[in-house]
Amino acid sequence: MGDTERIPVGIVGASGYGGVQLVRLLMEHPKVEIVYLGGDSSAGKPYTDIYPHLGHSVNLTVEAIDVDEIASRCEVVFLGLPNGIACDLAPQLLDKGCKVLDLSADYRFRNLDTYSAWYKKDRTDQAIAVRAVYGLPELYHEKIKESQLIGCPGCYPTASLLALAPLLKQGLIVPETAIIDAKSGTSGAGRQAKINALLAEADGSLGAYGVGKHRHTPEIEEVCSDLAGHEVKIQFTPHLIPMVRGILATVYATLRDPGLVREDLITIYNAFYRSSSFVKILPTGVYPQTKWACGTNLCYLGIEVDPRTDRVIVMSAIDNLIKGQAGQAVQCLNLIMGWEETLALPQLCFYP
Amino acid sequence: MGDTERIPVGIVGASGYGGVQLVRLLMEHPKVEIVYLGGDSSAGKPYTDIYPHLGHSVNLTVEAIDVDEIASRCEVVFLGLPNGIACDLAPQLLDKGCKVLDLSADYRFRNLDTYSAWYKKDRTDQAIAVRAVYGLPELYHEKIKESQLIGCPGCYPTASLLALAPLLKQGLIVPETAIIDAKSGTSGAGRQAKINALLAEADGSLGAYGVGKHRHTPEIEEVCSDLAGHEVKIQFTPHLIPMVRGILATVYATLRDPGLVREDLITIYNAFYRSSSFVKILPTGVYPQTKWACGTNLCYLGIEVDPRTDRVIVMSAIDNLIKGQAGQAVQCLNLIMGWEETLALPQLCFYP
Amino acid sequence: MGDTERIPVGIVGASGYGGVQLVRLLMEHPKVEIVYLGGDSSAGKPYTDIYPHLGHSVNLTVEAIDVDEIASRCEVVFLGLPNGIACDLAPQLLDKGCKVLDLSADYRFRNLDTYSAWYKKDRTDQAIAVRAVYGLPELYHEKIKESQLIGCPGCYPTASLLALAPLLKQGLIVPETAIIDAKSGTSGAGRQAKINALLAEADGSLGAYGVGKHRHTPEIEEVCSDLAGHEVKIQFTPHLIPMVRGILATVYATLRDPGLVREDLITIYNAFYRSSSFVKILPTGVYPQTKWACGTNLCYLGIEVDPRTDRVIVMSAIDNLIKGQAGQAVQCLNLIMGWEETLALPQLCFYP
Amino acid sequence: MGDTERIPVGIVGASGYGGVQLVRLLMEHPKVEIVYLGGDSSAGKPYTDIYPHLGHSVNLTVEAIDVDEIASRCEVVFLGLPNGIACDLAPQLLDKGCKVLDLSADYRFRNLDTYSAWYKKDRTDQAIAVRAVYGLPELYHEKIKESQLIGCPGCYPTASLLALAPLLKQGLIVPETAIIDAKSGTSGAGRQAKINALLAEADGSLGAYGVGKHRHTPEIEEVCSDLAGHEVKIQFTPHLIPMVRGILATVYATLRDPGLVREDLITIYNAFYRSSSFVKILPTGVYPQTKWACGTNLCYLGIEVDPRTDRVIVMSAIDNLIKGQAGQAVQCLNLIMGWEETLALPQLCFYP
Repeated sequence: MGDTERIPVGIVGASGYGGVQLVRLLMEHPKVEIVYLGGDSSAGKPYTDIYPHLGHSVNLTVEAIDVDEIASRCEVVFLGLPNGIACDLAPQLLDKGCKVLDLSADYRFRNLDTYSAWYKKDRTDQAIAVRAVYGLPELYHEKIKESQLIGCPGCYPTASLLALAPLLKQGLIVPETAIIDAKSGTSGAGRQAKINALLAEADGSLGAYGVGKHRHTPEIEEVCSDLAGHEVKIQFTPHLIPMVRGILATVYATLRDPGLVREDLITIYNAFYRSSSFVKILPTGVYPQTKWACGTNLCYLGIEVDPRTDRVIVMSAIDNLIKGQAGQAVQCLNLIMGWEETLALPQLCFYP
Repeated sequence: MGDTERIPVGIVGASGYGGVQLVRLLMEHPKVEIVYLGGDSSAGKPYTDIYPHLGHSVNLTVEAIDVDEIASRCEVVFLGLPNGIACDLAPQLLDKGCKVLDLSADYRFRNLDTYSAWYKKDRTDQAIAVRAVYGLPELYHEKIKESQLIGCPGCYPTASLLALAPLLKQGLIVPETAIIDAKSGTSGAGRQAKINALLAEADGSLGAYGVGKHRHTPEIEEVCSDLAGHEVKIQFTPHLIPMVRGILATVYATLRDPGLVREDLITIYNAFYRSSSFVKILPTGVYPQTKWACGTNLCYLGIEVDPRTDRVIVMSAIDNLIKGQAGQAVQCLNLIMGWEETLALPQLCFYP
Repeated sequence: MGDTERIPVGIVGASGYGGVQLVRLLMEHPKVEIVYLGGDSSAGKPYTDIYPHLGHSVNLTVEAIDVDEIASRCEVVFLGLPNGIACDLAPQLLDKGCKVLDLSADYRFRNLDTYSAWYKKDRTDQAIAVRAVYGLPELYHEKIKESQLIGCPGCYPTASLLALAPLLKQGLIVPETAIIDAKSGTSGAGRQAKINALLAEADGSLGAYGVGKHRHTPEIEEVCSDLAGHEVKIQFTPHLIPMVRGILATVYATLRDPGLVREDLITIYNAFYRSSSFVKILPTGVYPQTKWACGTNLCYLGIEVDPRTDRVIVMSAIDNLIKGQAGQAVQCLNLIMGWEETLALPQLCFYP
Repeated sequence: MGDTERIPVGIVGASGYGGVQLVRLLMEHPKVEIVYLGGDSSAGKPYTDIYPHLGHSVNLTVEAIDVDEIASRCEVVFLGLPNGIACDLAPQLLDKGCKVLDLSADYRFRNLDTYSAWYKKDRTDQAIAVRAVYGLPELYHEKIKESQLIGCPGCYPTASLLALAPLLKQGLIVPETAIIDAKSGTSGAGRQAKINALLAEADGSLGAYGVGKHRHTPEIEEVCSDLAGHEVKIQFTPHLIPMVRGILATVYATLRDPGLVREDLITIYNAFYRSSSFVKILPTGVYPQTKWACGTNLCYLGIEVDPRTDRVIVMSAIDNLIKGQAGQAVQCLNLIMGWEETLALPQLCFYP
């Protein structure tokens, strides 16, 4: 394929960890060419000043964010900006004919009141937001294909929802018993200089944060409610783990039918995810290590039933920056462009 | 105080991580002198062959395990052996007048049928076992003082039970809703050469194990049942975390009275642990980092209530090798000897 | 390209870290097909019992090592066995027409007396050994192309020699002043259960080993001597670092011409490695992080001159399991097969 | 001893890692009482807002830095401030009768021109500076005892100088061949929010920095010159290691007398450090792990001779925050107060 057939894409907010993953994945994507990297704080800097290891392969300079400029050069735009900014930019980009894949929270909610309550920002783009699709292809495959505007899920919701979806969709659990105890590497906090994310603080230690208050809670609940067919409240607790990458969500819920054994559930999960290339159901008694997913767009699911308590326990492992962020956005890109869903998305980790 | 006043103590099973913590703590204990280190696999080795950094301070050789020899030299014996061995040794040592602090599972159960079912070992020492006390001083302070035989708790049960005790004792939660999602550093697996505990495997990764099947489950349940006054089943899931030391137990349970707020519970916990020197209740909104407990005999408890779900979430952090193992044994020693409970037990970590 | 055009290859010793990297790289290689995995200790096991994360993509069972069987099915064989075994197998495989890429020390030495002295093994395959080529393509590109038997370099020698080669080849340093202070992640010790490689031992710590005695010393010296044109002795000290992957070699040497500045040397290095796709010379003042090379076949070189001491300091970073092992073997495969050297070899890391 | 006999001490700059170590060590010191914590950026904050784990034991509020106030309350003052500030404060404090232990670079140099050249700050306190003593008790024991003003060494110089001192003092090496390849945990960079010290950046990676330019170079050289009796230039390269604490300095030098074997040197080192409680010379063939020193005021030295190259290699391991910083300051305090040198200084690590 000649370069002339490549689609020009831009990344706004390219200096963070999501950005650099996107750069990596898109550079090896056979159907796209990165033609624009944008960011206000690093505007004017060669990209390799930010990531020196890319000196030999990326020859782009970060540019100030200019909607006209972006739209004139890019067919697809990835937005990797802090929450509350994409909802100002995306309407203009869509208006000028771009397709938009947003990695912030701005287009993840169907109910903008929920968004406004948790993110403390009023919205004026209701007409646009209603057209956005939640970018979790395993659940919204067909809708994503038809959309111009994707709100890509957060990393915790991706791991949590892939674990819960078959259970909720098929009514196998009592929804209000669902507890998600999630553990994330510190790269999830982004490339920001914060004391608590220093190696000297975070290494050799472990703690919960945002207990009962984390903003991914309403995002998970909205999709769970959609799957269950009625409003669902879930318990979600994130923890910071002394490692760079990876999320493990350990999900607990009480089974409606205590007669179900783990083999039943493994069969059900395999059926549910039959056409999902990136979800891997582990065999009986095998539980995922986050490292297995590292560097890939995969989600590994391990399933256990405790007959003593009638609970199902699902362990869900992803790479928070790939399937939990940039890889998922590329998966959505593949869908909205009508390409093969797995294109340019790694499926094998460099273990160990 | 002259050395003549020091009590002679022995450590059987001194080459593991529990053993070396005991050595460290007891060397700085003003009322004891280590006179015997025992172990079959390393018998005959100078202790500093095993731990070269102790070359300047420990001048003992590991000896073969000989009950007569031990009893003739030691007033108190710590047993740090694999499960199923202490129950053969302890009766003989008690018979010869030693006090015994066992760090294995052998004397943690009041119900030996439970022990036999989970540990696959029949027991012939019922008469002795019935005299053993569960060595968690915050709950069994008075009984420990009177006992000659202590079954020191496992590391997970210590963190879990200190989190759950006030809730169960005062009937504040629906017991069967209790879920313990526990996370441990890899030193908990002991000083054994296993592939999955290699840095190359465990670092940068995270996973659950023993889901619904871990042997600390019945130990936790027996004490929970004692506290609640009726039989209780709990959900317990351990995870291996890429760090050396520390346990965080995140405990979830549904409140009986949804009107309780976290400040109420903090007050209740403070009252419950008023006379416990080693349990620290954190103020509103502060959640523990395992690192805070590192190297100390402390347990930090952070308490949160989620009014959306009527659940209490208690986070409990300890050093798995101190409060979860050797430190707790020394705390028990202090009690059975009638010394100050806090003697020689560190309360300040070397942060970071 | 149809599958019929793929070359059948086998990996003997597939269960270690080198083996699993080879599996990963070769599965994504467009011109080969893995048709055989061999290993005596894991013979009969499905490969995914060893590496469960590969369950969805590798459908091979480890087979006992049988030369006839291997030769009948494979055109190229990778040997990833402990030192001293390949020199028994390789002659037979070559005799039956296979090409052999050996990852052990057996074919790295031109002088078998050196090998025998350091590896305590007498050799009877001199006639074969003399045909082997040292598999460092940046130095022996043309010879590798012509060979049927490659002795792939160790991880430390790869990092060290790429740092030293331009200096020695062009006579810029006093060879006997060369000191290599090397630091490696613990995966370099292989997938073997050893106490000192446990996370609980190795994490949060750092130490040297094999000081003045490491077996990679004579391997480095033989190539250095070849480059310098006379016998060279170097100082080599390896250290174990608390991380999984990566090697940094910090190389010190006294410049013959104290007038040289770092920009001169950067120019010289760029010229020396002009046609080497995998060696990246960093610009002035930039020093490599091992993480930049992680998951890639690259070697990053940072160059500094200290005018106060007239020394050059070269920092060389590689992924010990890719450029230091499996990737380099695939690079050699590409050369001996006449394919593009960079085929199937990653050049971008998943930072962070 | 009653509290009335305790000496009142203050810590200026208590919020950093050096500060919190000092707080820890001094709280357990039987002869001092912390009566003042100072710091401008955190003035007015309870100390436990900065370090919540100390809530149960430290009941002090950080105060603005006021010389009169400090001098009126404190007999001894520790200064843990950024370089270039202590030289303004110390003269005033000395003038008001305080003893001063400075942890910055300000009083480490006998030659203030060297200080000014490397630290870019002119000095007006020459008269005072000349009275300061370099606070490395193993080398300047008697002078420290007599002084009111101590310039406590940096962490790298402590590890490096203890390794080099016997060699230089006794003329055993060619000084200009000395190369110090030092590796430090990231806590050495202090409690400052910097991108490169984030766990997400620093974990799983390794790199050199400040090559040929690190400010500890002239500090090491000044003491080396004092030991050698003539001016000495050394090569010093620091590296950042993915761990919290600890420094390993690997020191290389060419022996003047190639007949010396490692046992000779071990004997020489043992003699040199005979009266130094905190320096531990390891036996033949044992090399230090940084973890052995963790949490202690010890320095472990491992000594090797390579007869192939006539070099001595000394490996020196310390805890960068204890012997490399706060512990050493307390050791100096003990000396200037005429107390036992080892008072309140830990000598056993909590391994692992």
